[in-house]
Amino acid sequence: MSKDYIAARQKKLNSLLKRMGVEALLVTSETNVTYLTGFGGDSSYLLIGKAQTVLISDARYTIQIEEECPGLDVYIRPSTESMTTALEKVLKKAHLEKVGFESHVVTCSLLDSLSGITPAIQWTPLDSFVEELRMVKDASEIEETRKAVQQAQQGFGVLRAILTKDMTELQGAHELEHAMRRFGARQAAFDPIVAAGERAALPHAIPSEKRIGESPFLLVDWGAMTQKGYRSDLTRMIIHGRPTSKLEKVYNTVLKAQCAAIEAIGPGVTCKKVDSVARKIIDKAGFGKYFSHGLGHGIGLDIHEGPRLGANQSTELKPGMIVTVEPGIYLSGWGGVRIEDDVLVTRDGHETLTSVPKEFESSLL
Amino acid sequence: MSKDYIAARQKKLNSLLKRMGVEALLVTSETNVTYLTGFGGDSSYLLIGKAQTVLISDARYTIQIEEECPGLDVYIRPSTESMTTALEKVLKKAHLEKVGFESHVVTCSLLDSLSGITPAIQWTPLDSFVEELRMVKDASEIEETRKAVQQAQQGFGVLRAILTKDMTELQGAHELEHAMRRFGARQAAFDPIVAAGERAALPHAIPSEKRIGESPFLLVDWGAMTQKGYRSDLTRMIIHGRPTSKLEKVYNTVLKAQCAAIEAIGPGVTCKKVDSVARKIIDKAGFGKYFSHGLGHGIGLDIHEGPRLGANQSTELKPGMIVTVEPGIYLSGWGGVRIEDDVLVTRDGHETLTSVPKEFESSLL
Repeated sequence: MSKDYIAARQKKLNSLLKRMGVEALLVTSETNVTYLTGFGGDSSYLLIGKAQTVLISDARYTIQIEEECPGLDVYIRPSTESMTTALEKVLKKAHLEKVGFESHVVTCSLLDSLSGITPAIQWTPLDSFVEELRMVKDASEIEETRKAVQQAQQGFGVLRAILTKDMTELQGAHELEHAMRRFGARQAAFDPIVAAGERAALPHAIPSEKRIGESPFLLVDWGAMTQKGYRSDLTRMIIHGRPTSKLEKVYNTVLKAQCAAIEAIGPGVTCKKVDSVARKIIDKAGFGKYFSHGLGHGIGLDIHEGPRLGANQSTELKPGMIVTVEPGIYLSGWGGVRIEDDVLVTRDGHETLTSVPKEFESSLL
Repeated sequence: MSKDYIAARQKKLNSLLKRMGVEALLVTSETNVTYLTGFGGDSSYLLIGKAQTVLISDARYTIQIEEECPGLDVYIRPSTESMTTALEKVLKKAHLEKVGFESHVVTCSLLDSLSGITPAIQWTPLDSFVEELRMVKDASEIEETRKAVQQAQQGFGVLRAILTKDMTELQGAHELEHAMRRFGARQAAFDPIVAAGERAALPHAIPSEKRIGESPFLLVDWGAMTQKGYRSDLTRMIIHGRPTSKLEKVYNTVLKAQCAAIEAIGPGVTCKKVDSVARKIIDKAGFGKYFSHGLGHGIGLDIHEGPRLGANQSTELKPGMIVTVEPGIYLSGWGGVRIEDDVLVTRDGHETLTSVPKEFESSLL
């Protein structure tokens, strides 16, 4: 991560903190610590404010922090010192009066400890504060996401090339992850879903020992995570054998809904508007109640981030946001169809980052 | 997961809840929900008490819950209903007055919501309540852990067989994970650490593009996760080229400390006692300050569970606990040596579950 991007994020955060009337923020979310420092380890908190920025970590990470965060102030606690004691020392030294905390991350137990060790500090709950910043990606993050998309697509190419009817869902999932790693991914962005036939009716199916050849179609929902932690998220169907007219109808309904929703994406458009574009098409085809989840979500350092594309979401899309668009129809006992792409909101519309063909014909094996 | 084991866990929890004077517990930790129900998905909470046990989930998981938790009461919230609203409905229907919550898991924001929607309920913080139960494994969990150990050891066998000096740390890590999956693992228990030479001085090194042949020794810290989610955790060194006397000295110090600590394990022994056995040996050899972390930790559904083997831990070991024993010596700029096994506390002592040879000679490639 270039130091410039990190500095820009910290600067933006500090000006937001000032507006909230707090002197500093205690960042306890692992992902938010990574976002604000470039540090990829865990078990570490960041105190960030105008007067000081200090990472509180332990001796396992001393060298890694030097490598990943040159110039960052660090407090390394010895293995005999608890995180609470370390926080007490750092916070006392900082002489702060009003500090924000991530109320959607900080547990009740941790807040109890913080209040106990720092009676002079007024702790202010800030819900999803860094996450707000993270919704809009900077140029380095967009580049990482492109990389994650490429790793995922290359991996899928290998899976399609080596797929046999004897392979189990589980073997397919493992081959896919292994292939993405060969193209540079740190790991899969999440456990890939490889679900044959009726198992595809489970939107979050766990790959099983079922053989792929037992069913006429296969749903694959997968993504790659880059070395720096950014993620892609796609879904494609692979159809073998003679497709039924029901499958073709369900497939084309999902595809139509997905393409229309993508077309609707642009700056200033609300998330619920995009969701409704897809939902109306699926409703009209008579499958409304079988589309049982939101249309999509942001991706980045987490696989599910803001903004959410859902019926109640009034957030407006902004340039730099990256969202999945993934309508699905799930028919218990028969199976499910989902098609998913990753879409970047641009200044004058959108750019679909993913490019695996998705017409019904192209999904035939 | 056999229904009998699940029933026994729920029964034990209910009697502990009664002792704490609460009618029910809202379980929000994903792993604790799995432990108490057998359900392997996420985004779901469990309300458990003598009067009712109900899993609150969403439509993505309807079928999976039927498969994994036959007979369990389930509240499925529609995609348009938030978890908070779902909780409100379920809790109102349950007519409870005093309910425990997992204060080490529940965030400040969630507790605010809970208090808001259920003014009649007195919420009682219970820190690490289910985790206490989880520390002692039942027969089905011990069997799963044995499986996780076997998958890890078979995978390591493949890695040793295919290892070349041209391979990068990252390739080694990926081959290892792929091999474990071939032997039935769902995935690696955690991102494997494959660290050559001086990179092994980072206790939590992330595999890099460094070629293995560039350094005379390699640290591999890995484990497997079974399909049901149980984990193993091992560390071995692989030495190639002519070993230096420094390496041999460091290695044998760590090995001596590790073997002595394992020997000290048995029911009634405190965790800090076991830690001190290893620490004294490393201290005496002059490396005390280079052993910068605790001696070990419990393993199970999480890779780090209780009990912790550390200097401040007065918990007494009990039959059924499974802990790692993993002393290490880390010399910045030179490298590090760690050796790690998984040890089950038995009624009359202990059983080492892992069996990869660890004498200095056996680590020579």
